[in-house]
Amino acid sequence: MVEKVNLKDKILISYGTGGKYTQEFINNYVLKHFKSKILSELLDSAVLNFEMDSKIAFTTDSYTVSPIFFPGGDIGKLSICGTINDLLCVGAIPKYISVSLIIEEGLEFEVIDKILSSIEEVANEENVEIVTGDTKVVEKGSCDKVFITTAGIGVVNKNICLHYNRISPGDVVIISGNIAEHGLAVLLSRGGFGFDCKIQSDCSSLKPMLEQLFNKEISSHIKFMRDPTRGGISAVLNEVVHKRKDVSIEIEEELVPLSGSVKNLCELLSFDPLNIANEGKVVIIVDKNFAEETVKVLRQHPLGKNARIIGEVTTENKGRVILKTTYGTKRIVDMPIAEELPRIC
Amino acid sequence: MVEKVNLKDKILISYGTGGKYTQEFINNYVLKHFKSKILSELLDSAVLNFEMDSKIAFTTDSYTVSPIFFPGGDIGKLSICGTINDLLCVGAIPKYISVSLIIEEGLEFEVIDKILSSIEEVANEENVEIVTGDTKVVEKGSCDKVFITTAGIGVVNKNICLHYNRISPGDVVIISGNIAEHGLAVLLSRGGFGFDCKIQSDCSSLKPMLEQLFNKEISSHIKFMRDPTRGGISAVLNEVVHKRKDVSIEIEEELVPLSGSVKNLCELLSFDPLNIANEGKVVIIVDKNFAEETVKVLRQHPLGKNARIIGEVTTENKGRVILKTTYGTKRIVDMPIAEELPRIC
Repeated sequence: MVEKVNLKDKILISYGTGGKYTQEFINNYVLKHFKSKILSELLDSAVLNFEMDSKIAFTTDSYTVSPIFFPGGDIGKLSICGTINDLLCVGAIPKYISVSLIIEEGLEFEVIDKILSSIEEVANEENVEIVTGDTKVVEKGSCDKVFITTAGIGVVNKNICLHYNRISPGDVVIISGNIAEHGLAVLLSRGGFGFDCKIQSDCSSLKPMLEQLFNKEISSHIKFMRDPTRGGISAVLNEVVHKRKDVSIEIEEELVPLSGSVKNLCELLSFDPLNIANEGKVVIIVDKNFAEETVKVLRQHPLGKNARIIGEVTTENKGRVILKTTYGTKRIVDMPIAEELPRIC
Repeated sequence: MVEKVNLKDKILISYGTGGKYTQEFINNYVLKHFKSKILSELLDSAVLNFEMDSKIAFTTDSYTVSPIFFPGGDIGKLSICGTINDLLCVGAIPKYISVSLIIEEGLEFEVIDKILSSIEEVANEENVEIVTGDTKVVEKGSCDKVFITTAGIGVVNKNICLHYNRISPGDVVIISGNIAEHGLAVLLSRGGFGFDCKIQSDCSSLKPMLEQLFNKEISSHIKFMRDPTRGGISAVLNEVVHKRKDVSIEIEEELVPLSGSVKNLCELLSFDPLNIANEGKVVIIVDKNFAEETVKVLRQHPLGKNARIIGEVTTENKGRVILKTTYGTKRIVDMPIAEELPRIC
């Protein structure tokens, strides 16, 4: 029998070393957030049942965002939304998530509790199950507060067939809403700019919006989906033309949805909003005959209310992404060399 | 087209921000180690095919071991072996692994290359595929060199049914070899002890040994398996009696396999070897009628050459783990409160 151990209000090294304190920490602080029968078994691995004439999607990401709390979210919300979105972007419905924490000794329990509550909230809303995890604690100064690595498993929707090879000239590029909010929200929350500008991160799960899309016949005409996180829209579209050097992508600056405050801030700081991270948007490339209907479905959900066609696949500047500016000129949108903002996710 | 970027010999913050440097780092440094067609697609998620009348096992662990190189292994080898072993311990054959790196800015490429080579070597030997991953870089001082989080998916062997509920009085406890080597090897490699004692970590994949066992009929009589990492044998056996408060486990000190140097060092430092982490051992609880044969199968593989029966499930001290000492006395083996050694995995 485990005697009750008094846990201080800060994380101690011993909470990660596998003994009684670790057990108490897991039982009293972690499991209360995640009411999974599978997780509560606390086995080395979760054992899962699938209806198995389907393909499985598998993803992972580490989150090191600084600060860990920012307008519109925190590292916990980010870590689960990011993994959910990565699964959706290969056409899969997310099912099971793992959460692995690396915590700095001395971090307040309250902080961990808030972060786990954020994960819990998204998991409940999005109907995904946290089924396995791990906790490590490192000495003060050996990590910056907390890093979270999530992995996820989803079941690929049978209607959907995403592949670079399916992209053809004439296909249309859609973005599901206003861009560049996450990166700027995190940057501003670091302070030191001497001006007052409130931008909320768009951090959210794309599941309710994309599930609606996946359930429609038109989803079979989608050829590519990607959530434009680090490196922004520029990185995503450049990845397409690097894979498919026989096409180019042309987008129109005027069509790219952007809030007024994001536009102003980017002008002030000389940032290109195309390079800035989003955490609740999706870029979709779809057959032009189904583009309007795709936008319509996206707009039915609040997350997609600003969804727009922003450009198309062409053959004019093969291997390049081209931006038609508001002045009517054209410029190359290159892969960002080093994004302006480290540790935004 | 991506122009060639000159990468310095140290990791820069920009290698983790999702732009051109990140792409170059992934393409030139990471992918060369992992020749997976699935990984090379560099999608947000890996899409996997399974023969799907089986159950799936899913696990994750973060590795923060310090130092990152130690006798018998390094953080790379540890991170893949640990995840492989966690899958095996629920009766699954490991198939797909994800690798997520959090790297401290300024770390030498050579170090990352060695670590990735270690992962590559184990993946090749054990026939598991690295199918997805992530890289984050944080500023100098925000993490200690490199942390690795692996997740893994395996297919559960149909012969095997592991559950606490199946454990009965009379069942036998087996350990697959000499204990406490990993924890002590890492501790010694931190230096400062003023004596010369070489202990190698037992860090290894249990797959070849356990696969042999899974292929035998006797594996259906195995009721519990666990790799005794953090918290050692004590933690694993205590977990059993916490789940099954109606039984006790009695082990014999004399039977616990221990190398001479581990025994001496533990006496010198007043460590209980039962509390110290292993990274290439498994504790098995099996029906007594199949115990001898189980040990025989384990011993057929070099990893199991010191496999032994060390005790049995009884009802004498319900909810307790009891050690019969070499002096013939009995003492309670408690869940370690806070393991002696932080950051051993």
